[in-house]
Amino acid sequence: MKVLAVDLGGTHATCALVEDQTCVDATVLDYRAAGGLQPLLPEIAIALRDICFRAGVALRELVGVAMTFCGLVDSNTGRVLSTNGKFPDATALDLPRWSEGELGLPLRLENDARMALLGEHYAGVARGIDDVVMVTLGTGIGGAAMIGGRLLRGRHFQAGCLGGHLPVRLDGRTCTCGAIGCAESEASGWALPIIVKDWSGFGSSALNESEINFERLFEQAAAGDTVAVEVREHCLRVWSANAVALVHAYDPEILVYGGGVMKSASSILPSIQEYVARHAWTPWGKVQVRCAELSNNAGIMGAVPLFKEEYSSSLSDVR
Amino acid sequence: MKVLAVDLGGTHATCALVEDQTCVDATVLDYRAAGGLQPLLPEIAIALRDICFRAGVALRELVGVAMTFCGLVDSNTGRVLSTNGKFPDATALDLPRWSEGELGLPLRLENDARMALLGEHYAGVARGIDDVVMVTLGTGIGGAAMIGGRLLRGRHFQAGCLGGHLPVRLDGRTCTCGAIGCAESEASGWALPIIVKDWSGFGSSALNESEINFERLFEQAAAGDTVAVEVREHCLRVWSANAVALVHAYDPEILVYGGGVMKSASSILPSIQEYVARHAWTPWGKVQVRCAELSNNAGIMGAVPLFKEEYSSSLSDVR
Repeated sequence: MKVLAVDLGGTHATCALVEDQTCVDATVLDYRAAGGLQPLLPEIAIALRDICFRAGVALRELVGVAMTFCGLVDSNTGRVLSTNGKFPDATALDLPRWSEGELGLPLRLENDARMALLGEHYAGVARGIDDVVMVTLGTGIGGAAMIGGRLLRGRHFQAGCLGGHLPVRLDGRTCTCGAIGCAESEASGWALPIIVKDWSGFGSSALNESEINFERLFEQAAAGDTVAVEVREHCLRVWSANAVALVHAYDPEILVYGGGVMKSASSILPSIQEYVARHAWTPWGKVQVRCAELSNNAGIMGAVPLFKEEYSSSLSDVR
Repeated sequence: MKVLAVDLGGTHATCALVEDQTCVDATVLDYRAAGGLQPLLPEIAIALRDICFRAGVALRELVGVAMTFCGLVDSNTGRVLSTNGKFPDATALDLPRWSEGELGLPLRLENDARMALLGEHYAGVARGIDDVVMVTLGTGIGGAAMIGGRLLRGRHFQAGCLGGHLPVRLDGRTCTCGAIGCAESEASGWALPIIVKDWSGFGSSALNESEINFERLFEQAAAGDTVAVEVREHCLRVWSANAVALVHAYDPEILVYGGGVMKSASSILPSIQEYVARHAWTPWGKVQVRCAELSNNAGIMGAVPLFKEEYSSSLSDVR
């Protein structure tokens, strides 16, 4: 099966031609999402046509366009439901109509963490495992769940997506989502600088001297900086409690971690793995805790299974 | 459709004949679950035959026996997976074989909170709503989730069932399930006396003078006892954070609360409702927070939909 894939991130889009488990060719477009999605669509259409031309593939040989969006989407209609600040115009766009008009192909739209899960299930670390939870640790914390080989979507397409927004701390910080003490507001890329600057002793910490991100945090913690060590332990505890919540909520065989923070996977995953083995209630055995294999390509690799899913079952069954 | 129903609790079993949404007749057997399930089976069979005899219904007119169990069960095979201390012999029993042998009827076994959800969906407060989360507040905190009209079961039949075991407090108490800071270990019937006795000021609290349970807690809080007020606020906050976690995990339209603690529903539900309306991320609208309607009959009312479910779809699809 051949499909086109467009992975829309906050700063760039990857446009690709995918045949089964192979990315035949890809182009990356840089932009600022705040400028809106509409002005980018002509560029995206050109990039997709160019890729097909270079590969000698006619549009009519393709099954469709799979588009990955960094927000809540209605998977049935291909509409964006919530942009979370990125692409402010996206909820007003009829992307399936755009795709039909420009490329003569049907378009399927899906949330980015769900697409990453589909990709890892199809061609990555979760191959052959039908009960999977995906966590993307980055600026925010994304999530997705698959049960019995089917993506969990829910009534309003939010089920599984809000794994980073399960509250883990009663007296925690207010999250951008409105809840209190979410994993995301306690240990994510956007929350980290706020947490560190509030931490007792920050003034004399090495973290006071440069940009604050997780790579710096783990570096300074390894070098023995007290604040860095304490904040690292806090974040590991938050991610671990969140992992237990996800295991208890969705009953998976494997937890897959992706996202930019996984550059520091070796400082993170053993700790989560050990905590889950000790504290999750899994009388049947042990949940695997693994790093995503496809990194930036996971969303693209979700394109083929997204279309296979559409053809194998009605969408109302899938949710 | 006519079915037999057996609701096995910790201290008694309700045996009933159910026709569609009507409980035709029922008998309650008292016992101590710690003595095991095997010795009770002959009594249960006699009670079920007696009910049919009184109602003038032949066993061959019935579709089967729906049995509700207070623990983890394999819904496919009818085996008990974990008894959680009750009925220590139950994992060794072949209940479907017992039912076929004694009554000539197929048996379906399901977790008690899932059956309560099926009952409330079929004949209670969640009629006509296909996206439902059930919470049973009692000695422990049970849970169940329905998405798109289907019970969520998960790979190891734990999905949805462990709603009371989503950690909500990072530095909380260790739960019987092994996790830390679960809703159940922070605010349930078994945890309450431990929490109250540990609370600062307990020595001079009115709660020091009698058995500690939620009815007493709400009474004393209403009377102005400081410890009772503080513990009440703690429990309400735990249940509210748990409610947000459940909404974010399963994307329901309604949260239904049952269980013994709902005797104090008027002291509890308005507070959860207000918290969920303010803090849950539901751009589509507001989640309803409601009290179960069927109380002790919910499990029995789940019997007919459990058999309808079995006949309408393969079990591997249902999970």
